[in-house]
Amino acid sequence: MINASVVTIGDEILIGQVLDTNSQQLARALEETGIRVVRMVSIGDSKEEIAQTLLTELSRAQVVFCTGGLGPTKDDITKAVLAQISGSRGYVRHPGQMQKVVEILHNRGLDILPINEKQADVPDKAEVIVNQLGTAPIMVFRDMPGSGSTLYSLPGVPHEAVGAIPAILADLRAHQPLSSILHRSVMVYGMAESALSEKLAPWEDALPADMHLAYLPNTLTGIRLRLSCYGDASGDEPERLEAQLSQLKALLGPLMYADEDTDLETTLGRILKEHGLTLSCAESCTGGEIAHLITSVAGSSAYFLGSVTSYAVSVKEQVLGVPPQVIRECGVVSSEVAAAMAQGVRRLTGSDYAVATTGLAGPSGDEHNPVGTVWIGAAGPRGIKTVRFVYKNDRKRNIERFAASALNFLRLMILEDLSN
Amino acid sequence: MINASVVTIGDEILIGQVLDTNSQQLARALEETGIRVVRMVSIGDSKEEIAQTLLTELSRAQVVFCTGGLGPTKDDITKAVLAQISGSRGYVRHPGQMQKVVEILHNRGLDILPINEKQADVPDKAEVIVNQLGTAPIMVFRDMPGSGSTLYSLPGVPHEAVGAIPAILADLRAHQPLSSILHRSVMVYGMAESALSEKLAPWEDALPADMHLAYLPNTLTGIRLRLSCYGDASGDEPERLEAQLSQLKALLGPLMYADEDTDLETTLGRILKEHGLTLSCAESCTGGEIAHLITSVAGSSAYFLGSVTSYAVSVKEQVLGVPPQVIRECGVVSSEVAAAMAQGVRRLTGSDYAVATTGLAGPSGDEHNPVGTVWIGAAGPRGIKTVRFVYKNDRKRNIERFAASALNFLRLMILEDLSN
Repeated sequence: MINASVVTIGDEILIGQVLDTNSQQLARALEETGIRVVRMVSIGDSKEEIAQTLLTELSRAQVVFCTGGLGPTKDDITKAVLAQISGSRGYVRHPGQMQKVVEILHNRGLDILPINEKQADVPDKAEVIVNQLGTAPIMVFRDMPGSGSTLYSLPGVPHEAVGAIPAILADLRAHQPLSSILHRSVMVYGMAESALSEKLAPWEDALPADMHLAYLPNTLTGIRLRLSCYGDASGDEPERLEAQLSQLKALLGPLMYADEDTDLETTLGRILKEHGLTLSCAESCTGGEIAHLITSVAGSSAYFLGSVTSYAVSVKEQVLGVPPQVIRECGVVSSEVAAAMAQGVRRLTGSDYAVATTGLAGPSGDEHNPVGTVWIGAAGPRGIKTVRFVYKNDRKRNIERFAASALNFLRLMILEDLSN
Repeated sequence: MINASVVTIGDEILIGQVLDTNSQQLARALEETGIRVVRMVSIGDSKEEIAQTLLTELSRAQVVFCTGGLGPTKDDITKAVLAQISGSRGYVRHPGQMQKVVEILHNRGLDILPINEKQADVPDKAEVIVNQLGTAPIMVFRDMPGSGSTLYSLPGVPHEAVGAIPAILADLRAHQPLSSILHRSVMVYGMAESALSEKLAPWEDALPADMHLAYLPNTLTGIRLRLSCYGDASGDEPERLEAQLSQLKALLGPLMYADEDTDLETTLGRILKEHGLTLSCAESCTGGEIAHLITSVAGSSAYFLGSVTSYAVSVKEQVLGVPPQVIRECGVVSSEVAAAMAQGVRRLTGSDYAVATTGLAGPSGDEHNPVGTVWIGAAGPRGIKTVRFVYKNDRKRNIERFAASALNFLRLMILEDLSN
């Protein structure tokens, strides 16, 4: 297995102003490709520090990725260091990247200054992968002096760095003998990791030696189960992986919401779109998070009509039509109120389905319910259902769990309706 | 100035499953204390790697912070490495942390197993700061063999790591001669960094040599301006800093929304609470983000009544009462619709103030408006106002900017009403 190291350059990271997300994105992509990241290092915009760190990491790892330090301003001295440690004798202007610089500045209505043109200059030892999203080129230095390792230099702007990953992986595959590794992911919601792992243990224990199951949990998306095959490329790996995946899917049943790496809001949207159904929601404790998740999916206007955040009792009563008597008798955090809210917003918007939440995200509970309690109501053409969960996180994570649970509860209800 | 290094331990970071936020939180707190973070390193759960990295960092920096690797499971081998490199001869059980372990497990209704008790055991060279939020103790190793540097070991769980920072800073101050450094922050919204820096240049250039202004921009909160005084503690620094701050505030006028490090939703909530006012909102393109921000503030139920996310035209018309004719004649993304939405939700909920958004977050615009266009409407007891902005970000960041701009627009309207 190839070892890699990721080096992030920038004072803004060391003073805590900017959160480094590039390293995570790179690490995730590398891991899936079968490359093992053994270190991540963040350093400042200092020539000596950059040179010393890169040389150290090149001597430890076969591939080093560095991000940042490539902009046109004076802080960005990475390119000079790369020229020096790669034994370059000068710079050459890369025509493909120069064209990109011209195009980008032209689109922004800006003149091209000498400082911009210099962005397309690279040390003569560098191979260039054109950065399609920005002015700073992606550079590859093969067979670095001293170590023989390969160095990739990426821009620091997050969407440019992430955008560079596919081209870099393709370049890696073309130049390094990578172990053949296949992955398939399925997304699971509604069972704790420990319970799920117990449920799957007999099947997991019987997996062939070249297959491995990874549990990758997340508050908003549930657990991603990733089945990997580290085969010797004898040829039948894809079929064998699919066969095991079928068994896994059968074991999971409706716990599985997708057989690829995605999230609940995208999956729910796909079901609604496919069947020409519309959706609305009513939120109390989640305060807009469900609507925010649903509308974060581009194209959600095809099925999402709208929502009501009814924080005040008066809005629950007057906008959603929850009967005051129900609130008085059952309490705001109750099955009855969740049901009435879902019904109310469904009637108000005329949607096919509606989901509603009422609960206590924190910091405190009330006399009837512990903090972390949520009642979820779902309403559709065939009736209303409710469910109660109690989570034990802080306010922010409770809100996320409530919202994800509501999306999943509605998904299950729609699937059941569709199957009958 | 003291140099520090931050080491994060955990395989889950190297495979990209978990984003390391602890390093940023620590770095930010350290920078404000006048400690310079020179490196951040993330490594896996390997004994040799942990020992080697910590020893290297201890030899480079006067203080090293390591987070993670302290849980009860077999992966967590940090404590053994710390015992070894600190020259400890054994472990001692810390009574204060033991009490915390008992308390936490008891509250979760769990029995205390030997594996849990071991959490309170620390190498005998360690001083303990009790972790009030979890079972793993915070450990301090002073005068480490070989380097003489200090090593702080923090738990990896983010809210525990962040919760440990104040106690660690207090310990640092009690044991290290820190340079005296004073900070004051003001929050600014509604002007680009470049324009703001031009506006402030004459004042900034005239600052005394021991004062410095930093620009810390953020999509959701605007620009934090941090004025720092690196005085020699001759005694008049606080007064001199306050005097400069007064000048800065006068220059900023209503661009400044707070004279401490906070955000728009908290500031708006404070104004509403102080004056006994209530709020509602109607969201189209922001899809719940405004309500989500407002309700992320604990205690927001005191002033936030609720909101309507009117994604569909039918919901704009039937729930918010936007006249169909207005939509037909002016288009959905228009001043008139933003105004009618704000008015509609104010009437519906009976709130004192209301804010509404209608726009195009992306990925594409329409025939009348470029992508990134938003119309914001604000309604209050003295009437209605609207404003248009065009931002040039991706969908996610456009939604954030729309929401922040809406909160700020409403803030300015309320302040004007209150001042008349």
